[in-house]
Amino acid sequence: MDLQKYFDAPVSRDWQTMNDGTVRFALVGLGWWTTDFVIPAVADSDLCTVTVAVSGSADKAEHVASDVDTLKAAMTYDEFVDGAATESYDAVYIATPNSRHREYAEAAARHGKAVLCEKPMEATVEDAEAMIDACDDAGVTLMVAYRMHTEPMVRLARRVVADGHIGDPRLVQGMNAQPLLEMNGDLDQWRLDPDLTGYGTSVMDLGIYPLNTARFVLDADPVAVQSMMISKHEAFADVPDERATFAVRYDDGTYAACGTSQNAFDTTSLDIVGTNGNLTLKPAFHMETTLTVTTDDGTYESTAESADQMEEEFDYFANQLLAGEKVYADGRHGLLDMRAIAAIHDAADRGETIRL
Amino acid sequence: MDLQKYFDAPVSRDWQTMNDGTVRFALVGLGWWTTDFVIPAVADSDLCTVTVAVSGSADKAEHVASDVDTLKAAMTYDEFVDGAATESYDAVYIATPNSRHREYAEAAARHGKAVLCEKPMEATVEDAEAMIDACDDAGVTLMVAYRMHTEPMVRLARRVVADGHIGDPRLVQGMNAQPLLEMNGDLDQWRLDPDLTGYGTSVMDLGIYPLNTARFVLDADPVAVQSMMISKHEAFADVPDERATFAVRYDDGTYAACGTSQNAFDTTSLDIVGTNGNLTLKPAFHMETTLTVTTDDGTYESTAESADQMEEEFDYFANQLLAGEKVYADGRHGLLDMRAIAAIHDAADRGETIRL
Repeated sequence: MDLQKYFDAPVSRDWQTMNDGTVRFALVGLGWWTTDFVIPAVADSDLCTVTVAVSGSADKAEHVASDVDTLKAAMTYDEFVDGAATESYDAVYIATPNSRHREYAEAAARHGKAVLCEKPMEATVEDAEAMIDACDDAGVTLMVAYRMHTEPMVRLARRVVADGHIGDPRLVQGMNAQPLLEMNGDLDQWRLDPDLTGYGTSVMDLGIYPLNTARFVLDADPVAVQSMMISKHEAFADVPDERATFAVRYDDGTYAACGTSQNAFDTTSLDIVGTNGNLTLKPAFHMETTLTVTTDDGTYESTAESADQMEEEFDYFANQLLAGEKVYADGRHGLLDMRAIAAIHDAADRGETIRL
Repeated sequence: MDLQKYFDAPVSRDWQTMNDGTVRFALVGLGWWTTDFVIPAVADSDLCTVTVAVSGSADKAEHVASDVDTLKAAMTYDEFVDGAATESYDAVYIATPNSRHREYAEAAARHGKAVLCEKPMEATVEDAEAMIDACDDAGVTLMVAYRMHTEPMVRLARRVVADGHIGDPRLVQGMNAQPLLEMNGDLDQWRLDPDLTGYGTSVMDLGIYPLNTARFVLDADPVAVQSMMISKHEAFADVPDERATFAVRYDDGTYAACGTSQNAFDTTSLDIVGTNGNLTLKPAFHMETTLTVTTDDGTYESTAESADQMEEEFDYFANQLLAGEKVYADGRHGLLDMRAIAAIHDAADRGETIRL
């Protein structure tokens, strides 16, 4: 099939098998991501609805509740953990600070609820492992919310690579930077507190995008890493990586060279160079993703403007639950990223290449 | 000054101070680069002329001679070393395999001729040091032919950074890949022979572009490196880096993450992300270089289609000789890249971060 046909095909949900049924969600953690992106996305989704809101205070949960017609209950984290209103939801979406993911995933597992958990999975490898055990023991589905996996242009990139159009992948470049302090002027926020964020901030929160999206597009896993990182700005005094560079060797032999910073101009891209062509996702990780593929046959470009990444993500998760099918980004998938991120921090600290 | 004004200004030779005078060149090494790019560029230049052709055989030198009206002599390398026709040229341009640069630079120095030498300077750090000593002792100018330094879009990028338009530079990404075996089907070529190329092939020949162009645009020097590299294809059996990833820390604190391969699809780019904006050179290193700068004020883009990079390079070198001024990319400038490249190979071998 020639490349033009890939780009001519309408953006389709190639994973969608269910058109009926609804998964009722408890949203655990009501920060700006949940309120600005998740609630509107679920409202537009085919298979999902929000029925429970969980936050630190009853007031905040009530406030969000006022905007959601389908809401059945608003509660505190403690009430959620204690099992309030479990009859009102089927699954939980966890978007709290990283170090709280385990507690709420374990509570969800005890309540017999499926878990969609934001990335990175937790603050540490050990906590991520405990989440997997809890969900396995309870027999509930655990999925890590890598929204790039359901982004149509990323799925198209994966198909282009799998079908050999750029030849054998050889080199990857990934960049993910944003001005965190301009987005949220609070110098005392959780992403800068190691007790809440984990190993650091830029690699955990941003570097995970090129690390994981390359995994997905290449269909390959990381096996070795290198890194340098530094913090200079006072707001980053407690985390090691105001900015970082890291390299990853994947198990197909591809090398990725990545840069990331929570204190730089908004810039996202992912480039893959193969033996017979290259592809670029730019912007890559901030919603409207543009894919460009170049081979000896020419250059092709597209953006899936009509698809909302969080809507795709929620409907995919719900589809798999309703169909009784496995999810792609399960706990073990997320755990491998946690191990890679821990190794990236270790590599920077030791000045050595670390094998996973 | 707002960014639009930088892009509105005509492409100018901001270094040109001389309009009269001619530097007569002996071209040492008549491979495809010299015949396809250098001879036409010198013919179009303001301040340069080719008067001597030097090659391995008198036949080859004669053949090239037949195309150059201004030629006074064609000779073998041995005749050049022995001082034939020294009255017919003022400077030499060396474009032989890397490990022959020293011998011909030392000969030129003995003859009192200025030296424009292709990058990388030599096959090893020690040979590069010897070239500097020879030229210093003879009091002749030595310049390393980094054509990106006179590329108008690269000079514009350097000005945009120096004037603070992207804020403080934080992260760099560089890519330089080409399909060497498709460009030259000979599996037994000098770039794949460690006796002729030096430490390796991809970093020496291609990786040097992002390494050095970032130095120039940032006005910063490398201080530490990391790398992973591998060779798989039989043609690369004798060199360690059919492909490589390497990271560089510059003395301004910026990190560069780079990929390079002599066995991948033609891809060149350099991205710099600062605190207030970013810039992209893409294509970066293969003649028509396009610069894009993005800040909160918008996106600006340009290509200097009218400027020939080798013509700019030769006229800059001649301008400095005629004016009696120093050159930017002197031997010490080139030597630092040689040390960085040696360290990149050492870092890959040892699996450690190497400080320069």
